Amino acid sequence: MKMRTLDPKTVATRDLHQFLLGSVAPRPIAFASTVDDDGNMNIAPYSFFNAFSSNPPILVFSSNRRVTNNTTKDTLHNIQKNKEVVINVVNYNIVRQMTLASIEYPSTVNEFEKAGLTAIPSDIVRPMRIKESPAQMECVVDEILTLGDQGGAGHLIICKVVKLHVAEKVIDEQNRIDPHKMDLMGRMGRAYYVRCSGPNVFPLFQPVTKIALGFDQLPPQIINSKVLTGNNIAQLAGLFEMPKEEDVLALKQNESIATLLDMDNRSLLLQNYAKQVLDLEGDAEKAMKVLLLDV
Amino acid sequence: MKMRTLDPKTVATRDLHQFLLGSVAPRPIAFASTVDDDGNMNIAPYSFFNAFSSNPPILVFSSNRRVTNNTTKDTLHNIQKNKEVVINVVNYNIVRQMTLASIEYPSTVNEFEKAGLTAIPSDIVRPMRIKESPAQMECVVDEILTLGDQGGAGHLIICKVVKLHVAEKVIDEQNRIDPHKMDLMGRMGRAYYVRCSGPNVFPLFQPVTKIALGFDQLPPQIINSKVLTGNNIAQLAGLFEMPKEEDVLALKQNESIATLLDMDNRSLLLQNYAKQVLDLEGDAEKAMKVLLLDV
Repeated sequence: MKMRTLDPKTVATRDLHQFLLGSVAPRPIAFASTVDDDGNMNIAPYSFFNAFSSNPPILVFSSNRRVTNNTTKDTLHNIQKNKEVVINVVNYNIVRQMTLASIEYPSTVNEFEKAGLTAIPSDIVRPMRIKESPAQMECVVDEILTLGDQGGAGHLIICKVVKLHVAEKVIDEQNRIDPHKMDLMGRMGRAYYVRCSGPNVFPLFQPVTKIALGFDQLPPQIINSKVLTGNNIAQLAGLFEMPKEEDVLALKQNESIATLLDMDNRSLLLQNYAKQVLDLEGDAEKAMKVLLLDV
Repeated sequence: MKMRTLDPKTVATRDLHQFLLGSVAPRPIAFASTVDDDGNMNIAPYSFFNAFSSNPPILVFSSNRRVTNNTTKDTLHNIQKNKEVVINVVNYNIVRQMTLASIEYPSTVNEFEKAGLTAIPSDIVRPMRIKESPAQMECVVDEILTLGDQGGAGHLIICKVVKLHVAEKVIDEQNRIDPHKMDLMGRMGRAYYVRCSGPNVFPLFQPVTKIALGFDQLPPQIINSKVLTGNNIAQLAGLFEMPKEEDVLALKQNESIATLLDMDNRSLLLQNYAKQVLDLEGDAEKAMKVLLLDV
């Protein structure tokens, strides 16, 4: 793979910014609600944001110095003064309203009104929650770390969640959030967003505490296959043990497999068959047995 | 919207953890490569990760204390010793190989071999890059902040990017990363991932420095519409000025619109027509004119 190498010391900030945003994605969106000393309400979206700890529950986001004129934003000023913020999440239903709140209205303009969103009181902190958001996290700010003094420089606004509100309708019968019902938006580079529901969202199961085989334990006809992808081979390498020889040989009773074994290009046919078993049935154990018949 | 309210002080860590992961999503994935003093290589994925500044270029990720037994991970030990890490991104092609690297193999096991990935030397730091990753960021670690001492507690590992390698094939003719070619994976709650390419990825344009109308400047028939969604109204509110009256009236020359104006339920019909103009053509100016005919 031909790579382009960028040295942050010599690349223009604007270009480096876009290469970082295109590489570090998808980013979750913090729709941050704050209030100033006069009670002026502010909401603004930030995608330099994530959870970093669950015990204590810590969220961190950055309100960056503007690249264009090196000024800072109302959200940061408000938090510096009163150390409180509500972080609301952004789902598909409110994403365009969110883009309105990113417009740089003067400090005294209420972005709730501009974006057509409803302010509702929080239980503990002074900033209001966004009623239309499916998850609202009331936070007190523990610390603000400054990462630089030039345009584009970030801050780490370290927030402790003191109350979490989640819409009942996105919680499933296992008492967990269903991502399809939540329908969150993520931020990519440039003007791109990603909608996180539908067929693009799927589970990948791999136990982390039980030791799997790994690529190095697989026979060469699998590792060197021109048919199987890296993802296919990884499914096989994720098994905990090689199948028993008698179970492999038992597969010869399967009529369609027996037919393949009689063909001249049996290796290729068995690999294609195994790939289908992996891609369509997700049955790594069966696929492994099929591949081991090629000896 | 009925909300469920959770108090972090009384909710079990395991449940709070899952509610946070389901709410703060999609999360970008840092596939972190580190090395210990004996040269043992380690790679492991982390989704408590994001960019936080572009000037200086700062990435932050967390290697959390395990919830089950409150122990810490090899990645953290290696970074504490030598303050270097390569953060590689994860695209669709290597996501299952990434899941293999999340398995808790003993410290001396080389996860590059287990996951079938290729280690290539970095320009500046000692940890190796992952050849198959479409973006590899060589970093020196500025600081490690500890967020707690219980199981589930995170660390802020604050990394400065000293060299960025991006695959030429994901860069478009405007010298920017094409998200569809990059094909990144994001992490959701539970075992869910999101693939960030295809129709789920789309641009939303809203200039932030030019002042848009906002919801409060729209007439009541738009704000109170039962047909238009919040996203539809936000497209209209994102315009910079109301159309001129003569331009609105000129629309009456349009035959299909003239027909609608003659009907008894003209309000409903005009709103449905405007919604189509917004959803299918994305033409907020035309939709606004259509809606203003309903007087």
